[in-house]
Amino acid sequence: MTTLIKGGQVVGVDGAKLQDVFVDGEKIAAVTSPGLLTTADEVIDATGKYVLPGGIDAHTHMEMPFGGTHSHDTFGTGTTAAAWGGTTTIIDFAVQAKGTSLLSTLDKWHEKADGNCAIDYGFHMIVSDVNDASLKEMEACVTAGVGSFKMFMAYPGVFYSTDGEILRAMAKAREIGATIMMHAENGIAIDQLAARAFEEGHTAPVQHGLTRPPELEGEATSRAITLAKVTGAPLYIVHLSASQALAAVAEARDGGQNVFAETCPQYLYLSIEDLAKPDFEGAKYVASPPLRDKSHQPDLWRGLRTNDLSVVSTDHCPFCFKDQKELGRGDFRAIPNGIPGVEHRMDLLHQGVVAGEISLGRWVETCSTTPAKMFGLYPRKGVIAAGSDADIVLYDPVAKQTLSAETHHMNVDYSAYEGFELTGKVHTVLSRGEVVVSPSGFGGSTTHGRFLSRDLNQYLS
Amino acid sequence: MTTLIKGGQVVGVDGAKLQDVFVDGEKIAAVTSPGLLTTADEVIDATGKYVLPGGIDAHTHMEMPFGGTHSHDTFGTGTTAAAWGGTTTIIDFAVQAKGTSLLSTLDKWHEKADGNCAIDYGFHMIVSDVNDASLKEMEACVTAGVGSFKMFMAYPGVFYSTDGEILRAMAKAREIGATIMMHAENGIAIDQLAARAFEEGHTAPVQHGLTRPPELEGEATSRAITLAKVTGAPLYIVHLSASQALAAVAEARDGGQNVFAETCPQYLYLSIEDLAKPDFEGAKYVASPPLRDKSHQPDLWRGLRTNDLSVVSTDHCPFCFKDQKELGRGDFRAIPNGIPGVEHRMDLLHQGVVAGEISLGRWVETCSTTPAKMFGLYPRKGVIAAGSDADIVLYDPVAKQTLSAETHHMNVDYSAYEGFELTGKVHTVLSRGEVVVSPSGFGGSTTHGRFLSRDLNQYLS
Amino acid sequence: MTTLIKGGQVVGVDGAKLQDVFVDGEKIAAVTSPGLLTTADEVIDATGKYVLPGGIDAHTHMEMPFGGTHSHDTFGTGTTAAAWGGTTTIIDFAVQAKGTSLLSTLDKWHEKADGNCAIDYGFHMIVSDVNDASLKEMEACVTAGVGSFKMFMAYPGVFYSTDGEILRAMAKAREIGATIMMHAENGIAIDQLAARAFEEGHTAPVQHGLTRPPELEGEATSRAITLAKVTGAPLYIVHLSASQALAAVAEARDGGQNVFAETCPQYLYLSIEDLAKPDFEGAKYVASPPLRDKSHQPDLWRGLRTNDLSVVSTDHCPFCFKDQKELGRGDFRAIPNGIPGVEHRMDLLHQGVVAGEISLGRWVETCSTTPAKMFGLYPRKGVIAAGSDADIVLYDPVAKQTLSAETHHMNVDYSAYEGFELTGKVHTVLSRGEVVVSPSGFGGSTTHGRFLSRDLNQYLS
Amino acid sequence: MTTLIKGGQVVGVDGAKLQDVFVDGEKIAAVTSPGLLTTADEVIDATGKYVLPGGIDAHTHMEMPFGGTHSHDTFGTGTTAAAWGGTTTIIDFAVQAKGTSLLSTLDKWHEKADGNCAIDYGFHMIVSDVNDASLKEMEACVTAGVGSFKMFMAYPGVFYSTDGEILRAMAKAREIGATIMMHAENGIAIDQLAARAFEEGHTAPVQHGLTRPPELEGEATSRAITLAKVTGAPLYIVHLSASQALAAVAEARDGGQNVFAETCPQYLYLSIEDLAKPDFEGAKYVASPPLRDKSHQPDLWRGLRTNDLSVVSTDHCPFCFKDQKELGRGDFRAIPNGIPGVEHRMDLLHQGVVAGEISLGRWVETCSTTPAKMFGLYPRKGVIAAGSDADIVLYDPVAKQTLSAETHHMNVDYSAYEGFELTGKVHTVLSRGEVVVSPSGFGGSTTHGRFLSRDLNQYLS
Repeated sequence: MTTLIKGGQVVGVDGAKLQDVFVDGEKIAAVTSPGLLTTADEVIDATGKYVLPGGIDAHTHMEMPFGGTHSHDTFGTGTTAAAWGGTTTIIDFAVQAKGTSLLSTLDKWHEKADGNCAIDYGFHMIVSDVNDASLKEMEACVTAGVGSFKMFMAYPGVFYSTDGEILRAMAKAREIGATIMMHAENGIAIDQLAARAFEEGHTAPVQHGLTRPPELEGEATSRAITLAKVTGAPLYIVHLSASQALAAVAEARDGGQNVFAETCPQYLYLSIEDLAKPDFEGAKYVASPPLRDKSHQPDLWRGLRTNDLSVVSTDHCPFCFKDQKELGRGDFRAIPNGIPGVEHRMDLLHQGVVAGEISLGRWVETCSTTPAKMFGLYPRKGVIAAGSDADIVLYDPVAKQTLSAETHHMNVDYSAYEGFELTGKVHTVLSRGEVVVSPSGFGGSTTHGRFLSRDLNQYLS
Repeated sequence: MTTLIKGGQVVGVDGAKLQDVFVDGEKIAAVTSPGLLTTADEVIDATGKYVLPGGIDAHTHMEMPFGGTHSHDTFGTGTTAAAWGGTTTIIDFAVQAKGTSLLSTLDKWHEKADGNCAIDYGFHMIVSDVNDASLKEMEACVTAGVGSFKMFMAYPGVFYSTDGEILRAMAKAREIGATIMMHAENGIAIDQLAARAFEEGHTAPVQHGLTRPPELEGEATSRAITLAKVTGAPLYIVHLSASQALAAVAEARDGGQNVFAETCPQYLYLSIEDLAKPDFEGAKYVASPPLRDKSHQPDLWRGLRTNDLSVVSTDHCPFCFKDQKELGRGDFRAIPNGIPGVEHRMDLLHQGVVAGEISLGRWVETCSTTPAKMFGLYPRKGVIAAGSDADIVLYDPVAKQTLSAETHHMNVDYSAYEGFELTGKVHTVLSRGEVVVSPSGFGGSTTHGRFLSRDLNQYLS
Repeated sequence: MTTLIKGGQVVGVDGAKLQDVFVDGEKIAAVTSPGLLTTADEVIDATGKYVLPGGIDAHTHMEMPFGGTHSHDTFGTGTTAAAWGGTTTIIDFAVQAKGTSLLSTLDKWHEKADGNCAIDYGFHMIVSDVNDASLKEMEACVTAGVGSFKMFMAYPGVFYSTDGEILRAMAKAREIGATIMMHAENGIAIDQLAARAFEEGHTAPVQHGLTRPPELEGEATSRAITLAKVTGAPLYIVHLSASQALAAVAEARDGGQNVFAETCPQYLYLSIEDLAKPDFEGAKYVASPPLRDKSHQPDLWRGLRTNDLSVVSTDHCPFCFKDQKELGRGDFRAIPNGIPGVEHRMDLLHQGVVAGEISLGRWVETCSTTPAKMFGLYPRKGVIAAGSDADIVLYDPVAKQTLSAETHHMNVDYSAYEGFELTGKVHTVLSRGEVVVSPSGFGGSTTHGRFLSRDLNQYLS
Repeated sequence: MTTLIKGGQVVGVDGAKLQDVFVDGEKIAAVTSPGLLTTADEVIDATGKYVLPGGIDAHTHMEMPFGGTHSHDTFGTGTTAAAWGGTTTIIDFAVQAKGTSLLSTLDKWHEKADGNCAIDYGFHMIVSDVNDASLKEMEACVTAGVGSFKMFMAYPGVFYSTDGEILRAMAKAREIGATIMMHAENGIAIDQLAARAFEEGHTAPVQHGLTRPPELEGEATSRAITLAKVTGAPLYIVHLSASQALAAVAEARDGGQNVFAETCPQYLYLSIEDLAKPDFEGAKYVASPPLRDKSHQPDLWRGLRTNDLSVVSTDHCPFCFKDQKELGRGDFRAIPNGIPGVEHRMDLLHQGVVAGEISLGRWVETCSTTPAKMFGLYPRKGVIAAGSDADIVLYDPVAKQTLSAETHHMNVDYSAYEGFELTGKVHTVLSRGEVVVSPSGFGGSTTHGRFLSRDLNQYLS
């Protein structure tokens, strides 16, 4: 089975080129000058469309247990929503529970995802329990295609690791070439601030933001960078939201250290003003790190341009307002943390292109190419090139759409972007050569997606 | 009883002036042009001598319990040695044990010191147990003349406080105007490095230095500064030893934050090479932070000139080599931490004047005037001025001496500076108008010294 | 003749102390505890007053030729106004004209000032013509008590020196221990911006500010610091006005370089909004560097606290609005540069004390003690101490006054501070033991002031 | 005419891929999976070879007039040597003489190059005479395909522009979207240092380095960045050699400013030790900025990794040792400035790949892709992609070669890299589809190369 995508603008990190793409089976077999090849089993007219490598969302949490409940998208609903939004790969997190092993955790997550994904997927491993056994298992995880390990400087009593545990895991990561992903907020200090606020009678959702000041994200980021320097481990800061943290990352990168960072659409478009919405509406915007003052946003956009922020992921972690977010009425600390977004990342970042914040090439780079390289999927994913998987998105750059919980495909009862009017829309999506989304709707299947055994970070120097 | 000190060079922060000093009882009553006053009960000829305000050592540990033993100087022997070296005030640390109260701790330390000191003394309070009661007691401590509280980011399981506990104490300090003193090393990470080194069979004293890299002092210093910024508390970094920590302090000070730092003579004159001496000799030099690579020393001297290092204290904490330091044979982690030095601070820093590293005025400022202001004793102490206590040192700038355990007065069986040949020597010392050291020897008494109820930090902006 | 000043608060860099001051002839002979001495030829009751060392204004321009006119205060009127305001020493600038020698310039300025000053005075030398002869003469200037040399990176065609000329002068300064004072604005770039603005029809006074952006002060300051580093010369940045320049100074000082800076009251209290006043009123506020956006002011106050700004001078350079400032109607480039202020410096900075921006000691330090040390007058000037000149100001800290051209004593037809309501006022002024200002008015004489042969900068390390 | 390059590793900024390249006429028509296309007029077996986009040397000086002589390569010899070394595009500099126009200058350079180049070429314009006419002509230059203008902060009296002239040119550049290229050394200060050294009898080549300290490159770089900030102009720092300059560039780039920099192989591999060779041998290494102390080299390599250094060019400017370099015997200031290198750039930087300093993709990026984008040639040049010019290099990564004047093809009598033993060697070079270098030797012609009318900088944000 061959497919010819003709007449489109193939977009890579270097911008758009008028080229045709020839797909043979699951792979791209050629990228040619327009019209060089003319026959194929199927011909798709891409005239007026961008032809993008499918989006890669390196930070999602499907059906994740958290605070007695779990995130509301299954792998099935979540990956289907992702496909609708032009994302053809997700990397989700297997979550080690204290007292359990990494490999049994990985098995459990395979069980959840296997046969239930509309698109390809990989896993990172959350290390909650640092001990001799789990450190040893990190090696087996790498062999099993899971070469990135997430740790938390936040959430004491849940995912939190001490600096000593982080140091041990980093030393092992350095040894085996793995990357440590870090949730960098000083959770010990934050919990103290939150407890004090609650004691003083402050219970509303906005307190979630007020008790997690950006200085404590900056501090934790600096600390993680120092620990990485002492051990020599590669470090990837997840969901960076604050100017202070960005400055720390930029300094480390100027110095040539293997330090990387991602941000998320919510930090680019939403702010603490949303968190301050009355009638508990703010709970919809509770995630960690919290939404910041708008003054951080120009810095984040600049970071995306300078590559001090290399990746845009969603930290997709949907909790319904009803019954889930509502667990925190009366105590902001009990609101499940998370904002849904896997469906809208490509569209939201395209607004940055429209607004002139980032270039067309940079859109593709931050949303697809760089996550592929960062997490060992390149050039299988992340690029339109001969030999790569035919994960391809035809994107209509001038179509209009309005985001809403009524029309989105994520399994959650609200949209953090309700009413946002966007320019640009996914037209057609291929996953390994198969059309899974087209103008006539979702044509894929949740048995299509396959587990991606990943290589190590491809950026290390 | 009046005393006239005539013909000397009175040295203050602004350098030396030919002036006479007239003492009336315990106080200085006048500073005059030479010869203006001619009669007094006693006349001391200071020709050719510097006339200094008595030294103030803001960081000593007399008879301190540590690791199953205690530092070997009593208040009696330690303050006598201090007097010999031109120091007329010490500020020692009362050490809260877990589960005890701050005020009972203070009582205990009063008991140790009361009637047993050759010179005046004050206390800082080490807060080891942060809880509602001890936070409340901080207020009473301020009232009792103890307005500075030391916390530890090192020594987990002993003095260590979490960032949350530090935050609580800082919030209280901000409220009551007190200063938080910080031992800034990331002890959690260090203990992990030390454990690994020990497991790998590295047991010698030098490991103490190798497992406490300067980056982890820099990190903790930055973190303390951030926590101080979030709370608004004044912060004083004790015994700063590393360039990385100095850079963090300088940046905070440029930004106008109430951040201060001290260093100690051992970091200016000794290095990790001493710690690496064979036959367990290195144990004599075990203190925390550890002695650093010599490359840090020029930065520390520069910091003293730029006032990013404002104070020189000794962290005097003497453990005998025999029976005490030897507890750590076979495991560097068991070596009691501390280096003796209260007797030699004024002399050692005078070498910096001789070498052109610091000015005459700066010597007096870092060793007397600034500690007085920093810890609420000014102008009672720290200056030769009408109205101030007559704590006066006549210093012979050209006399020669050689340091040695055989001749020093500290109650410890070795000298970290054995064989050092110095220029300059204390000639005469007055404490509140009484001659306690003179060319004919020690003439004071350990019942002379009085407790100093101190005001708050006088540098706050 | 002896004078006893009793009952006041003697203020030094270390704050206020209840002390009496005993003056014998031109000198202070003793500072004593209250009441120790009781008899003198004259007794002045200073109860409720501060007793300050007389102010030192290290940057004034009396009867200075500029742009075809000259500044409107003579040495007589200007020093009298200074005395009224509690300033007992000025350091004015001898201005080398191109093609003339430094020593003949100095002679000319001696001629202007000799016998015409109400208070003591010294000179800096403006070097406009760098050549072998003038470089050689710098040595003679030092011998003649003029050890500070001002150069300009602004005013091409007038005072401007090239970087090569600056380098030569700095190399000589390094050799002889002199300090280079720098007007640090990139005048070459500024003149281009100004020419373009004028060509585009922008002629109003505010253009003076808009065409001298703060970045070009920051740039020139950095450049001067680099040239000083290459040569090893001490550097003193005059009239620093911009945050960018302050950052450059702070960084150099952190690094231990001999770099110093002053600011002026106008940059602390006035802004580009004044320069934008309609009807050519803005011309009253034309000086260089220009008044800045108000956002720079908090940084300048912080700089005064952190000592990155060490001195407050006035850059007093009065041009009448009528006939002088008016020369620039129709072309902002022709407005004589300068703002009157020698009379108000002590009062204006006292407002910083009242507002809590700086401490009492810091007021005296920046306005008297530090300029004395910076320019080789200490301890003769700048301190209340036995042996120092009896230049003493009794200052009433609670008196109220309103500034106005109608009441000021400077010989200029407007006040830049018209209508400012101030707290605090000079009560009595002694210059070398003589009362020159008292509640009954000016009692001095313009034959009283003497030339001060100055030593070299006393801060060098 | 079609060509199929099969079996090779196509190298792009994202590393190497096993792909075939199909060339149709002057263009690449397809990049395919191995074996997809099988027939072509000519088939080249690239097994075991890298298939690179041809190198782009953005900084050369062929037959350039300098100091009464001219650089010794003609466009013919220089471009032939470039082709031998795998460079298929050069951008040379048209040099405006004072008093002449930009467009007549461009005509003159077209005349020199037209019909005399073995490979394609473009021009930058050196602006030596900033006036209304030449500023106006900058627009016409852009239209003529010359959108980058070089200015000099060095070489007073020759190419030097004042900061005012730079500001004018930058304002125009901002207006028309052009990029200012800057030789950033403080030539005014340097000439003073050089004159002093010469006066003191120091005449040897090493003085060239000693009188151009790296601080003065750092200073000028900072100044250029400030002027670019004030005007909004894009800035490209040529031949960056010093850590200080790199730090300034990194800071500006972190801040999101359109600032870029190149370095050259000589700064990566040679040092001031070469300049200090005896018997006037050092003259071979005289170029500006000068070769630096080796301590700068690790910073430069790091800059290449972090992209603060984006481009590697040669600044190829060959002067023979005999008769040309010898002009400076007895006065280092008279040595013609320049080092030959156009032939060796690709090989020398490949050593960085071999040594692990940079990745394979980064080699291609800094030597081909980025210069193409920086100077408006992308994707016509700088990439192996359908639609691009078939400028292709087959590179043998394991071949060995030794550099020597005896074997190189540049028209100069010495090699700055004499005896360097390298790994890797050019195998075959295609320029617009024609084989110009093959294992059997040079098969091209100096009539083949065409002028490239360039677009504007493609990196601007």
